[in-house]
Amino acid sequence: MPELLFPLDSSKSFTDQQIVGHNRWHPDIPPAVTVKPGDTFRAHCREWFDGAIHNDDSADDILNAPLNNVHTLSGPFAIEGAEPGDLLIVDILDVGPIPQEDSGPLAGQGWGYTGIFATRNGGGFLTEQFPDAYKAIWDFSGQSTTSRHVPHVKYTGMVHPGLMGTAPSPALLGTWNALEATLIATDPDRVPPLALPPEPDGAVLGSLSGAEFDRVAGEAARTAPPRENGGNQDIKNLTKGTRVFYPVFVPGANLSFGDLHFSQGDGEITFCGAIEMGGFMDLHVDLIKGGMETYGVTENAIFLPGNTDPQYSEWIAFSGTSVTLDGEQRYLDSDLAYQRACLHAIDYLTTFGYSPEQAYLLLGSAPIEGRLSGVVDIPNSCATVYIPTAIFDFPIAPSKEGPVQIDPGMGAPTASFG
Amino acid sequence: MPELLFPLDSSKSFTDQQIVGHNRWHPDIPPAVTVKPGDTFRAHCREWFDGAIHNDDSADDILNAPLNNVHTLSGPFAIEGAEPGDLLIVDILDVGPIPQEDSGPLAGQGWGYTGIFATRNGGGFLTEQFPDAYKAIWDFSGQSTTSRHVPHVKYTGMVHPGLMGTAPSPALLGTWNALEATLIATDPDRVPPLALPPEPDGAVLGSLSGAEFDRVAGEAARTAPPRENGGNQDIKNLTKGTRVFYPVFVPGANLSFGDLHFSQGDGEITFCGAIEMGGFMDLHVDLIKGGMETYGVTENAIFLPGNTDPQYSEWIAFSGTSVTLDGEQRYLDSDLAYQRACLHAIDYLTTFGYSPEQAYLLLGSAPIEGRLSGVVDIPNSCATVYIPTAIFDFPIAPSKEGPVQIDPGMGAPTASFG
Amino acid sequence: MPELLFPLDSSKSFTDQQIVGHNRWHPDIPPAVTVKPGDTFRAHCREWFDGAIHNDDSADDILNAPLNNVHTLSGPFAIEGAEPGDLLIVDILDVGPIPQEDSGPLAGQGWGYTGIFATRNGGGFLTEQFPDAYKAIWDFSGQSTTSRHVPHVKYTGMVHPGLMGTAPSPALLGTWNALEATLIATDPDRVPPLALPPEPDGAVLGSLSGAEFDRVAGEAARTAPPRENGGNQDIKNLTKGTRVFYPVFVPGANLSFGDLHFSQGDGEITFCGAIEMGGFMDLHVDLIKGGMETYGVTENAIFLPGNTDPQYSEWIAFSGTSVTLDGEQRYLDSDLAYQRACLHAIDYLTTFGYSPEQAYLLLGSAPIEGRLSGVVDIPNSCATVYIPTAIFDFPIAPSKEGPVQIDPGMGAPTASFG
Amino acid sequence: MPELLFPLDSSKSFTDQQIVGHNRWHPDIPPAVTVKPGDTFRAHCREWFDGAIHNDDSADDILNAPLNNVHTLSGPFAIEGAEPGDLLIVDILDVGPIPQEDSGPLAGQGWGYTGIFATRNGGGFLTEQFPDAYKAIWDFSGQSTTSRHVPHVKYTGMVHPGLMGTAPSPALLGTWNALEATLIATDPDRVPPLALPPEPDGAVLGSLSGAEFDRVAGEAARTAPPRENGGNQDIKNLTKGTRVFYPVFVPGANLSFGDLHFSQGDGEITFCGAIEMGGFMDLHVDLIKGGMETYGVTENAIFLPGNTDPQYSEWIAFSGTSVTLDGEQRYLDSDLAYQRACLHAIDYLTTFGYSPEQAYLLLGSAPIEGRLSGVVDIPNSCATVYIPTAIFDFPIAPSKEGPVQIDPGMGAPTASFG
Repeated sequence: MPELLFPLDSSKSFTDQQIVGHNRWHPDIPPAVTVKPGDTFRAHCREWFDGAIHNDDSADDILNAPLNNVHTLSGPFAIEGAEPGDLLIVDILDVGPIPQEDSGPLAGQGWGYTGIFATRNGGGFLTEQFPDAYKAIWDFSGQSTTSRHVPHVKYTGMVHPGLMGTAPSPALLGTWNALEATLIATDPDRVPPLALPPEPDGAVLGSLSGAEFDRVAGEAARTAPPRENGGNQDIKNLTKGTRVFYPVFVPGANLSFGDLHFSQGDGEITFCGAIEMGGFMDLHVDLIKGGMETYGVTENAIFLPGNTDPQYSEWIAFSGTSVTLDGEQRYLDSDLAYQRACLHAIDYLTTFGYSPEQAYLLLGSAPIEGRLSGVVDIPNSCATVYIPTAIFDFPIAPSKEGPVQIDPGMGAPTASFG
Repeated sequence: MPELLFPLDSSKSFTDQQIVGHNRWHPDIPPAVTVKPGDTFRAHCREWFDGAIHNDDSADDILNAPLNNVHTLSGPFAIEGAEPGDLLIVDILDVGPIPQEDSGPLAGQGWGYTGIFATRNGGGFLTEQFPDAYKAIWDFSGQSTTSRHVPHVKYTGMVHPGLMGTAPSPALLGTWNALEATLIATDPDRVPPLALPPEPDGAVLGSLSGAEFDRVAGEAARTAPPRENGGNQDIKNLTKGTRVFYPVFVPGANLSFGDLHFSQGDGEITFCGAIEMGGFMDLHVDLIKGGMETYGVTENAIFLPGNTDPQYSEWIAFSGTSVTLDGEQRYLDSDLAYQRACLHAIDYLTTFGYSPEQAYLLLGSAPIEGRLSGVVDIPNSCATVYIPTAIFDFPIAPSKEGPVQIDPGMGAPTASFG
Repeated sequence: MPELLFPLDSSKSFTDQQIVGHNRWHPDIPPAVTVKPGDTFRAHCREWFDGAIHNDDSADDILNAPLNNVHTLSGPFAIEGAEPGDLLIVDILDVGPIPQEDSGPLAGQGWGYTGIFATRNGGGFLTEQFPDAYKAIWDFSGQSTTSRHVPHVKYTGMVHPGLMGTAPSPALLGTWNALEATLIATDPDRVPPLALPPEPDGAVLGSLSGAEFDRVAGEAARTAPPRENGGNQDIKNLTKGTRVFYPVFVPGANLSFGDLHFSQGDGEITFCGAIEMGGFMDLHVDLIKGGMETYGVTENAIFLPGNTDPQYSEWIAFSGTSVTLDGEQRYLDSDLAYQRACLHAIDYLTTFGYSPEQAYLLLGSAPIEGRLSGVVDIPNSCATVYIPTAIFDFPIAPSKEGPVQIDPGMGAPTASFG
Repeated sequence: MPELLFPLDSSKSFTDQQIVGHNRWHPDIPPAVTVKPGDTFRAHCREWFDGAIHNDDSADDILNAPLNNVHTLSGPFAIEGAEPGDLLIVDILDVGPIPQEDSGPLAGQGWGYTGIFATRNGGGFLTEQFPDAYKAIWDFSGQSTTSRHVPHVKYTGMVHPGLMGTAPSPALLGTWNALEATLIATDPDRVPPLALPPEPDGAVLGSLSGAEFDRVAGEAARTAPPRENGGNQDIKNLTKGTRVFYPVFVPGANLSFGDLHFSQGDGEITFCGAIEMGGFMDLHVDLIKGGMETYGVTENAIFLPGNTDPQYSEWIAFSGTSVTLDGEQRYLDSDLAYQRACLHAIDYLTTFGYSPEQAYLLLGSAPIEGRLSGVVDIPNSCATVYIPTAIFDFPIAPSKEGPVQIDPGMGAPTASFG
């Protein structure tokens, strides 16, 4: 095991740890740890809701989740000698659930969860169809997982960090805040909101305190979106063996990461999302000095995916186009097309006996592929979603005999604001 | 070889063939051929521009392509006993370039083309950055391909039909025309247009003639977009061995197809697009009676992809988010995010010596993967594009040594309206 | 289609064709066709028994197959400028069944066969357990295949040539004849024989005639074994897209090939074997001058396999060790270990309802993997055989519920010398 | 982490641990741990030479390795309710190097070794060509590995147990001893020996002591070979996610395992072999009562391989036939054919600058595939070996330009009995 530079105690909250991480982006959050190019190290990662979600059969915790407290990131890790303009090489040597702890009350201790937010809390990709809160608990057995809330499926997880990135420069942070404020201003009362402005409530900023804490908390960007620094990209393919190249915007690069997922479908359509857990990351870091200009990288991560992702060779796929359910023709809207493809998949799965929310939770967490198949054929985009057939313990392809009927079990817990 | 039910003579134009196909969607285009459930047959397919694009080093033909004449479809094939509400099973037994003809002036005779339209002609996915016309000719050698216009790459094609579908019902056609007219009306003079209304000029409608031709030509839908009936889905994964299930909207189903691609990247971002060619399809058809209701399929194709796609295990990937190049923050716009990811890939490839248009043509035609990685992390979508590294004959990963410099050769032909 | 340089008429026998091929190896068989380095061409290939095996439900034809007439090879193809010491590059651009003919009496016309020889005819890998003749007919549908003789399986073929190679030099031919005669002499009456000596009866030697024919027929090597020149390697991985490098032993290289297989399991354990068919090969040839010394290649083919083999991700595997069924401990005998692994697979499959010969025919023809897992752990080798589970239309893994029982149908035709 | 039922302290020898395992097979070795069907647990595994091999640049330790002490197995684990005739289900949930210890003097602490035995010690698969002892040290970085002794390669390991199995019944043990004694008696002074008889010297038998120890030590079978109970199968495909089914021969089944490999090529041709290490296994066990008869399993493991093996899509392959280097024609000898294929690969790799022993060590440890390609084409077997090309940091395919020349570095340490 590489040296553990960022330990977490599963029995303590995120802010009571030996080293306190952060849950906002700001160049002035001090590095928690300093490493050298070429170093290999381990860090623990806290599950993104800091333990608020329980291994039970109620969705109340999802409904009342502490939204301002996310994401509980490990870091920042300063890399000696990193300067703006460099490319930071991050090798994901390993990533997994909380080591040595396979049972307990904290997600990552042998289990994880998939949640769907109620619309008021941000909703999910299909919030118009699923306005309430839902939850599924997934039990881990090695790298495979099953759920009492979504029975008759078992799959191998694509374990990855949902969130990783470097600190923004002051200028980049300013741009984020300006652009996002402009967007929010176009419809400030929208539910769910268009974007999340800086929010001092719930901010955790590492070792900062006092006035400096207050200043930074008022300026720091939220961690929800992916941005130029990487961030909450939720790329399911950042699995073990992946090499990522991040642009460096501040001296030391200030790498942070978290939001570990045991598995996720492309898009993380359930928002809360994937199979959430705490765990560990083993990383190796290095630098390409001046690499941003050398390789034409101004922003966003480049990566070389690992080669140990679970292999599935048979798939059932669904397609969608950019016409709304209400019958409005949109212009080349791949998000709408992907929504429609996902809804088609859900409609299909319900003919076998699943509830719609079970199917939705499955699509958010299983290693499904979501592809931008056609993006130029005016006025309709075509998006496709692929589900591996081997994850079901019953035959899932269409046949003349019609769908077999499964026992959906207890179903997925639901909660609403009533 | 299955019985050839829809032959084409490469030396004759689409309208001079023994059986004339069609290039519009309408329920009243008479079936050209009738088959039975369980039948296997071969059909030839005309390249989508009916031979207007030449194997040369000029992009003038792309600039002046006969846009009203597309797509030159083979069909309709009536399936005996098919009724609205059924699911039509189509097995793609084989698909390839023009058999027995490996050289000649027609795309599909040992070569194909990738074009990028000028903005005035509809542009491509990146038309703001690439407003002119461009072309690349690709030579076939078995299932691999190379181009004098994009040197130093060689890849195995994902051969597939860009377009396949069943005929719309009168009601469905009416909906299309109404919805798309509504969309067009929001900005009728937009360049490129928001959608394409019915256009009698250039219409080919099989055996129709006289007043019936005129009526149908005035009502028939254009073939550019994917729609509820399948249509121009441009799903690169409809390769040999794939089983597709189409909803049936008219008696007989009236299956048509064409727009064959030797290869294509997800999205067909160059619009004209993929590697275009004429060729053949070997199909097997069958029915699931009443399958639409049984399986909850109201629209759009379901499919089980084939298992002989070219395998690539090492990839270089680029990510993008939904902020415009001008610095506008958009809300969860995966099309924009995919544009940004593609532009990042282009920027990267140019540091090795490619021109931007060479890189763009490569992304449109090579078997790249485009994924909707994050679609809920407000306000930014995250899209990712994956390029197989083995297609390059030089090392393509970032390194401390910097990019090797290739000889880009003659470059990609370009033409503009001046 | 590349230029057809070696045409065959399916309605005529091997010796009545426009160009007559050969079925023996000898440096003095004159080239049938001459090509240049860099050329691409098509050749037809005759099924190895020249049409003696029929699409029926009797194994009499297998029992009485004309053993002296194999293999009906296409060639020799002389490559201009090739000299001993060069490496001949052969790209398999495409390979498939008889083009444009999907029904008819000749294997390759939409169907193929797997046979098991009676022991007297050479037997198969498991001839002690299966001493009689057996046959299965396989019907092709695109690249997938099914059999009325082995129901409940369907798989995608790994289409490849069983036999390809360059002509031996006189010295190499002499070595073959000497070594194999020595081997035969150790047990000249063995059934099946240890090796096959030159046999003028049935010899076909291209354009040779008269005394020269007689001389060469008396010296020429049989085509059954793989040898230093390639030959009957039966490597199932020589699929479309593969680049093979053959040593050159005579001026012109004199490349020949045939024995096409629609599919085969590793080992071709049924001997007759694979799914046999006639068909075509599209090849591209080139030379690495002096490549044998440059790359240390003194004999046997090197190859870079193609990347479009059928993908299967779930397998059931069986292991075996080198103890005979009679309870004799052999020393590191991987052939015995593989026999035992195959017998274990057969025993297993019979618990689902297959007859042992159905299971055997399946292992010989399906894309199974046979691996040398342990070759040093004295005294036992360990060999393993992997069957893709997706080829069965019923669940094939062991479970607490026990094996489902299939209807084995008519079974596999059998014949014996009585 | 599952409960750790078989802990090992890396600083203590195999016999000084809290629970002492065993290194012989015998039905009367008492279970060290008892578990229930359905249980999940962790066990540590000692590297097979109990720490005798060092992370240095000398092969003296390989030359003088304590051969009588292998393999240091964890177990036996009794499974409650298991009876002869059952099938024992073993799920390999995870397997890896020593957890939490990434540096130190014990193989598995961040490094492993590949050794080749001198002929006097048993040699390897190519002992005639490589009669001395050789060693390579491999450093782990996540799941990838590199070696200072074999530079210019880096690959992802296929981590697996080389050895796992159930205890033999008294009758089965008796058969082993009888058969192997008969084999040894045919050439009792052979170097290397034909088989290894029971050997009290070095025997470790769990909790046994006194007269019972002496009796069992005199009867117990050595662990070198794979046998009916599984044993030292060295199947590289028993990776994480694999489900194995073992026959049960004694009440409780008495499962034992060890000989962990970070990676291995098919055959483990270097004997000592693979990349050897200590580490851990997470297992889940269950029973199919009476499964041996139900599924026709009399001996040897059946397994369903996991789906997270490293993916490689481009390979360079070598073939061999069963003619000895001295020019003797053998009859269908796949071991010889595989030796020749491996020697061809070694010859090839040396033209790039590797020493023969570097190439040999590479083939033994990298995830190469070894296939029984043709096993019936008398008199020659054809075996093939496939090396993934992506593991090299230089182009490895043959080309007209000839092989690039690498710097082989310090080379592989060697030692001989002089």
